[in-house]
Amino acid sequence: MNTEMKAAILNKPKSIEIKEIPIPEPKNNEALLKVHCIGICGSDVHYYEHGRIGRYVVEKPIILGHEVSGTVVKVGKDVKNLNVGDRVAVEPGIPCGDCDYCRSGRYNLCADVEFMATPPFDGAWSEYVTVKSDFLFKLPDHVSFEEGALIEPLSVGFHAMRRGKVGPGDTLLVTGLGPIGLLTIEAAKMFGISEIYGSDVVAFRRDLALEMGAKGVIDPSKGSVQDQLKEATGDKAIDVLIETSGNAHAVSDTINLVKRGGRVVYVGLPTADSIPIDITSMIDAEIDMLGVFRYVNTYADAIKSLDHPLVDLKKVITDQYPLDDIQKAIEVAMTEKEKSIKVMIYPDSADLQSN
Amino acid sequence: MNTEMKAAILNKPKSIEIKEIPIPEPKNNEALLKVHCIGICGSDVHYYEHGRIGRYVVEKPIILGHEVSGTVVKVGKDVKNLNVGDRVAVEPGIPCGDCDYCRSGRYNLCADVEFMATPPFDGAWSEYVTVKSDFLFKLPDHVSFEEGALIEPLSVGFHAMRRGKVGPGDTLLVTGLGPIGLLTIEAAKMFGISEIYGSDVVAFRRDLALEMGAKGVIDPSKGSVQDQLKEATGDKAIDVLIETSGNAHAVSDTINLVKRGGRVVYVGLPTADSIPIDITSMIDAEIDMLGVFRYVNTYADAIKSLDHPLVDLKKVITDQYPLDDIQKAIEVAMTEKEKSIKVMIYPDSADLQSN
Amino acid sequence: MNTEMKAAILNKPKSIEIKEIPIPEPKNNEALLKVHCIGICGSDVHYYEHGRIGRYVVEKPIILGHEVSGTVVKVGKDVKNLNVGDRVAVEPGIPCGDCDYCRSGRYNLCADVEFMATPPFDGAWSEYVTVKSDFLFKLPDHVSFEEGALIEPLSVGFHAMRRGKVGPGDTLLVTGLGPIGLLTIEAAKMFGISEIYGSDVVAFRRDLALEMGAKGVIDPSKGSVQDQLKEATGDKAIDVLIETSGNAHAVSDTINLVKRGGRVVYVGLPTADSIPIDITSMIDAEIDMLGVFRYVNTYADAIKSLDHPLVDLKKVITDQYPLDDIQKAIEVAMTEKEKSIKVMIYPDSADLQSN
Amino acid sequence: MNTEMKAAILNKPKSIEIKEIPIPEPKNNEALLKVHCIGICGSDVHYYEHGRIGRYVVEKPIILGHEVSGTVVKVGKDVKNLNVGDRVAVEPGIPCGDCDYCRSGRYNLCADVEFMATPPFDGAWSEYVTVKSDFLFKLPDHVSFEEGALIEPLSVGFHAMRRGKVGPGDTLLVTGLGPIGLLTIEAAKMFGISEIYGSDVVAFRRDLALEMGAKGVIDPSKGSVQDQLKEATGDKAIDVLIETSGNAHAVSDTINLVKRGGRVVYVGLPTADSIPIDITSMIDAEIDMLGVFRYVNTYADAIKSLDHPLVDLKKVITDQYPLDDIQKAIEVAMTEKEKSIKVMIYPDSADLQSN
Repeated sequence: MNTEMKAAILNKPKSIEIKEIPIPEPKNNEALLKVHCIGICGSDVHYYEHGRIGRYVVEKPIILGHEVSGTVVKVGKDVKNLNVGDRVAVEPGIPCGDCDYCRSGRYNLCADVEFMATPPFDGAWSEYVTVKSDFLFKLPDHVSFEEGALIEPLSVGFHAMRRGKVGPGDTLLVTGLGPIGLLTIEAAKMFGISEIYGSDVVAFRRDLALEMGAKGVIDPSKGSVQDQLKEATGDKAIDVLIETSGNAHAVSDTINLVKRGGRVVYVGLPTADSIPIDITSMIDAEIDMLGVFRYVNTYADAIKSLDHPLVDLKKVITDQYPLDDIQKAIEVAMTEKEKSIKVMIYPDSADLQSN
Repeated sequence: MNTEMKAAILNKPKSIEIKEIPIPEPKNNEALLKVHCIGICGSDVHYYEHGRIGRYVVEKPIILGHEVSGTVVKVGKDVKNLNVGDRVAVEPGIPCGDCDYCRSGRYNLCADVEFMATPPFDGAWSEYVTVKSDFLFKLPDHVSFEEGALIEPLSVGFHAMRRGKVGPGDTLLVTGLGPIGLLTIEAAKMFGISEIYGSDVVAFRRDLALEMGAKGVIDPSKGSVQDQLKEATGDKAIDVLIETSGNAHAVSDTINLVKRGGRVVYVGLPTADSIPIDITSMIDAEIDMLGVFRYVNTYADAIKSLDHPLVDLKKVITDQYPLDDIQKAIEVAMTEKEKSIKVMIYPDSADLQSN
Repeated sequence: MNTEMKAAILNKPKSIEIKEIPIPEPKNNEALLKVHCIGICGSDVHYYEHGRIGRYVVEKPIILGHEVSGTVVKVGKDVKNLNVGDRVAVEPGIPCGDCDYCRSGRYNLCADVEFMATPPFDGAWSEYVTVKSDFLFKLPDHVSFEEGALIEPLSVGFHAMRRGKVGPGDTLLVTGLGPIGLLTIEAAKMFGISEIYGSDVVAFRRDLALEMGAKGVIDPSKGSVQDQLKEATGDKAIDVLIETSGNAHAVSDTINLVKRGGRVVYVGLPTADSIPIDITSMIDAEIDMLGVFRYVNTYADAIKSLDHPLVDLKKVITDQYPLDDIQKAIEVAMTEKEKSIKVMIYPDSADLQSN
Repeated sequence: MNTEMKAAILNKPKSIEIKEIPIPEPKNNEALLKVHCIGICGSDVHYYEHGRIGRYVVEKPIILGHEVSGTVVKVGKDVKNLNVGDRVAVEPGIPCGDCDYCRSGRYNLCADVEFMATPPFDGAWSEYVTVKSDFLFKLPDHVSFEEGALIEPLSVGFHAMRRGKVGPGDTLLVTGLGPIGLLTIEAAKMFGISEIYGSDVVAFRRDLALEMGAKGVIDPSKGSVQDQLKEATGDKAIDVLIETSGNAHAVSDTINLVKRGGRVVYVGLPTADSIPIDITSMIDAEIDMLGVFRYVNTYADAIKSLDHPLVDLKKVITDQYPLDDIQKAIEVAMTEKEKSIKVMIYPDSADLQSN
């Protein structure tokens, strides 16, 4: 094996350099992966464009990318759950394991989590990456690397289902049909939901939602959302609304769209500092408004749920590039919202071609 | 419309008489149904054979049958949720609506529930039946009357899923693959479960379970259940076990078959007065043992869940008879356990022929 | 017994008339009470002042008052849970018992609830009142009529505890220390909470909160609430915040005051149409925002919890008037926010004097 | 500081030796405590008497004792939550932090937990002990070391409350009134419960239960438990039963003593291999039977709950001995069930005398 590998390094906003750096050595509880593919996430795009997201600032060159799958090529001496050759999905956030949040089953809220591609931690836009082995999940033979990488964004929707206590018989509305919104539809199917409705201003995204199983879609730019929804659903009550757009109007409108006693799960980060919410109606209807921050304990269960005959994560992959073209790829992810959903990157271009 | 109808009346154990009786008049909050089909339940068979089930004793002639669907032919003056012509499934237990159980969402435990075909309340082995309209659920066009009638036994499995907090990623074992066990497999699919294993001593039932989507089945009469299960599952841990057989050995064995922290849901009524349970292991493994009595709030959600592409309730229907042949039908249900699962009865033989 | 009784009738805003009207006859499932005392609620004051609350409009003369206790003087023929002479608290909302909300344990959301003193339903500002007997709860000997009447507003706080999944070890902040805020402190003690903090701009209310067991109080008009809270708590994290003030600033601020993964329960109805909420922080901290509409299944449990040695509901009663002085009493409730919390009304002035 | 300390070593069943051994050095994430007091647990007695508990076998000399409090005298370099001089309670089981159980908030089920005084891990019958600092909990000034040590057995009852979803208004029955049963009464008070009933064959224990706040007690050796319970409670339904005796009759009887839909929490390990349970009634009444294995996430919350005015853990301490008299102390714990509940050990006899 070589001692050096290619990695894509963001030196400053809008400037990515492909560079040879040393292949990292796995610690005792880590495995070294040959990366197969990495999805580009909205947060990657945001760091690329602005050099920061809220309190997280890129202060030195960073390797982005945290939606990853690959093959184990080396394991540390304490690793027991994996062998060389195993195909795995990567859960990219490593919590401390000791704080109150970690102990009580909410490790996503751990203050000391080390999350790939969140400054100052490097991600996986590289040929190889080391990961704590307990956060690697074996992929069954029938699951592709692409699906493995997509478990990460899918997990957000999967966690939203749990936060919203979604179960069979519920009627769902997903507002925002970007990568997270569409994968939330996939997650909903995993939870036995068939009555799923979607909303987005982009026709391409609405069409994809329908193709993925939404029973109806609406365009919030075309008049009253309530009226459109009433028509699309045949006047069914919305039990759970999952807001993934972050759009201020969409966020404000959530309270008017769910039934009394309904649940609204907020996933998409708004850019506005604060958003007007009709708290009086929220109280009168005894609504649950539930935040979703990343995900927790989703990987094993989500991978098992790929069995579902209607679930097909790959539908969201619209673009594929070798790592060498990362800058072009990220520009596509940034600008082509009318025809691009998920851009997938391949460090080894042979993997891309054999696809 | 006629004023008289045929009904099958159990005069004493093993003696059913087909008789003309007046068609009942719906009260203000009731609807009158023309019954399309009725499934024979194990409890019907038990009353037929023994004239009692535990504390419920047949003391005067009774009409059995409580797995019913039909068409609304008349509605009381206060009925708002239904119209003449609506195709409906019947939830056969009418609770008081006022007690602590009713108010807290567990109306299945209401002491004053009036449950069809549980003495002294008549059931639906008849051409017509009246039911409180709030307990009638409209069937979508794509749902057959047979599926409508099967919502009743399915509901037991559906409720078991909720009691067992079953969700995507769980691995299930269903012990006992009679009508309830097999419909529990259908319910599990509705909850997004794909890893379902089954156990029964009858080959025909095991085969049907596989056909319905079980990933593996075992025969408890063929040596160690634990060893067989290990092989069938590839050594996967069982998260939730649903016991539907009522067999004393199966009930005793449950504690050994689930993982630490696992849940066991008890559905099948044992005939034994009490069954030895390894409480020490139950404590050491911090297991939840959860009883299931009938079901609560399942109908609307179960009907919506029939959309699931892998769900097909009708697979359990093995025999169909006109109401005139009810005694023969019930004998089949009682004796042909090797080849019969669910026997369906049709008051109007035209409905049976057009099937 | 007389056939006529005194009742206080709101003919139009700010105009209450004491009138003789017929004593009502209990229906089969009702009891007739001789009313002992009735608390004045903020909603009574609001109807008195404005003649409406949101969608509820006083369109014809109405009897207000729904925080009631009294003695059973007559029972309908189907009443089984009560006898003449029983001292009872009244749960003033009678739900339909048949809808999805009623069946699933959330009857407070029933669309057809008949709620005392909410137009068009009369309340209990009268000598006698009839109530469905299942909504009357016997008071143990050690519980006074005043405590019985206060179970109603206490129930709001009690329900808030359940909605917020409050349990031992939690640290609570109650914003707004009017009647509901103060009774929420009492409810919190019933749930085993000792770390309770309060916030209000009125010194008298803060003092009462401290007297009732709050570990610290802050005055939001005196600079940064976060800084004051930090000092009051010794920098403890707030697990659950219960907002009872309805004040727009307080509502907006909730998100900043609870810990990551914390819960905020909204009880106080804001007058503002909508209030700016920092949804980004709410998502980042994965907060639960939970509406509370009235209460459900609280009476029996709250009455039992009056046993708690630190619970003393009566501390909130600041004023007592005979029914004849109702207009004066309601003016006090409306205007004397600096020294009045709960005003209690007595139809029989002998009851007031013997107090 | 000395380099050697006294420790009590169980060399073989019934043979304890007081020996000088080196004071351990804290690792980077550990603290060294000067032990103040240690409670003797039933498991200590069992190892002393039999040299094993089920699958756990004392194969080499072991230091027992895991109900511990003390003072921090040294901290490892990574310790942030503690300072020298802090008074602390010790949570004696250190889980792996990485497995599915640890990640999902059930670290008590971790297969790799290192639990003090469970072979092969040493406990704290010694002058000093090292503990991972995240499992040490500061004691407020008003909490004594004895209470600190008792947090361990109290935690079992505290966890039982959570497993049984106990809340205000519930009526409880605790069967078995040894140390765990009595501390379960204390835990119940922390959860806002006032209706607590107890059952034990030993008069001294029943009296102590009454003194600790039980509303009534019964003696199962004196005829029908159901009849006695009916009389003691005034025919109140038992919502939750916590079984701590491990007695086969008591365990069998649980199903008959709770209401329909009630919960039974099993804490006391039976000696019988299996116990007859009336599963038919358990199903008919839809009961939850819930195992309790140790506890999880209880320490911080239980310490905060010591504030409760009716809670007084120290009532269970009946005997106190210096570490030098450990063998005598453990014989008392083993034999004096009629007058001894919790025996407390003090490595430094000055601590005992100043008590």
